[in-house]
Amino acid sequence: MAPKLYYFDGRRGDAEAIRMLFKDTGIAYEDVGVSEETFKQMDAAGDLLFGQLPMVDFDGLKLVEQPAILEHIAQMADKAGKGTNKYLGENENERSTARSLCSAACDLRRESLAMRKEGSNDAKRKFKADVLPVWFAALDKLAVASNDEDKGLGAGVHFTFGDMAIFEAVNAITVALNLSVIRPYPNLKEWHDKAVHRAAIEVHIQGRDDAPW
Amino acid sequence: MAPKLYYFDGRRGDAEAIRMLFKDTGIAYEDVGVSEETFKQMDAAGDLLFGQLPMVDFDGLKLVEQPAILEHIAQMADKAGKGTNKYLGENENERSTARSLCSAACDLRRESLAMRKEGSNDAKRKFKADVLPVWFAALDKLAVASNDEDKGLGAGVHFTFGDMAIFEAVNAITVALNLSVIRPYPNLKEWHDKAVHRAAIEVHIQGRDDAPW
Repeated sequence: MAPKLYYFDGRRGDAEAIRMLFKDTGIAYEDVGVSEETFKQMDAAGDLLFGQLPMVDFDGLKLVEQPAILEHIAQMADKAGKGTNKYLGENENERSTARSLCSAACDLRRESLAMRKEGSNDAKRKFKADVLPVWFAALDKLAVASNDEDKGLGAGVHFTFGDMAIFEAVNAITVALNLSVIRPYPNLKEWHDKAVHRAAIEVHIQGRDDAPW
Repeated sequence: MAPKLYYFDGRRGDAEAIRMLFKDTGIAYEDVGVSEETFKQMDAAGDLLFGQLPMVDFDGLKLVEQPAILEHIAQMADKAGKGTNKYLGENENERSTARSLCSAACDLRRESLAMRKEGSNDAKRKFKADVLPVWFAALDKLAVASNDEDKGLGAGVHFTFGDMAIFEAVNAITVALNLSVIRPYPNLKEWHDKAVHRAAIEVHIQGRDDAPW
């Protein structure tokens, strides 16, 4: 049975990187839009470990939390030999680094979500002045090593589940604030642009509906 | 070379579950207290991926983010056959569940840290009324399966790195608010009490200095 991704209907949010990884790995999945009412029913039925979405049902294993879900997909992909990529990295150290990126992506997403929810120009200005430079400068450094034959951030040569998490977080910020915010970070921009043009990602981004995120 | 844990001097914070897992697995490590000045130097030198502590230097691999660090330690322990426990769980599904617990522990810790920073009785009241019941009720359900021969939350029989992350987050809340807050959740309380009495954890908790967290 194909994995089923449950998330709030019409929203990208914490589910979007999961969708992208399913597409990039070529693993068929079902995208289930959840209404507020269904959400309450699922929670009451004990389907959601901590009352949160996204949840992915992997043949009975009902997994929550984006990092755990992404790594589970990466593992399925590598085991099935899908594509030429190694989504878990080449070895345990690269896999640990991917996990670190994944957690960091959660932090970055949380900060950008707060800016988006607040919604004011002032919130955007503050985010651009205080939050974005710290993250993008760090990611720009990591991207230096990635821009020859490498595709993954840091020392790894593979585009891992951690890269996908960071990519979606960064891409969401460029959508919210304009692509120009990434220009002062040329290495990050090059890495981001390469990821945007991964075939399955490009098709996904062009085909997705508008969303309030 | 023993792994080196870098964290703010005299603080428990996001390093405490890492310390506990090092102790529980019996892996020797060095606890390096970092002053504000040293922190700035380390950040400027590029030692901290996203300008954050804790960082653990595993023989040159400088890893940040608690979930990534905990799983890396679990992996070292299982590979070295330290103790009779399987810190990664019995199979990939249990390992994915442990990751999910680990991410959830970050969320819970963030909420309890906000309460602690705010510090007022009002903040404590709000946390007790709104945040704590949601988390503790969910964990209490998970603990039901754990209280026979089981030691890990959920379906797993092992006390994994995910359990350690949740245990520290819950234990920190009982220290901040009083152990009585856990009493309405008998399964969680039983699980928590068993974890407190794991030999290495007990020694660690009794031996640690007071800290503002």
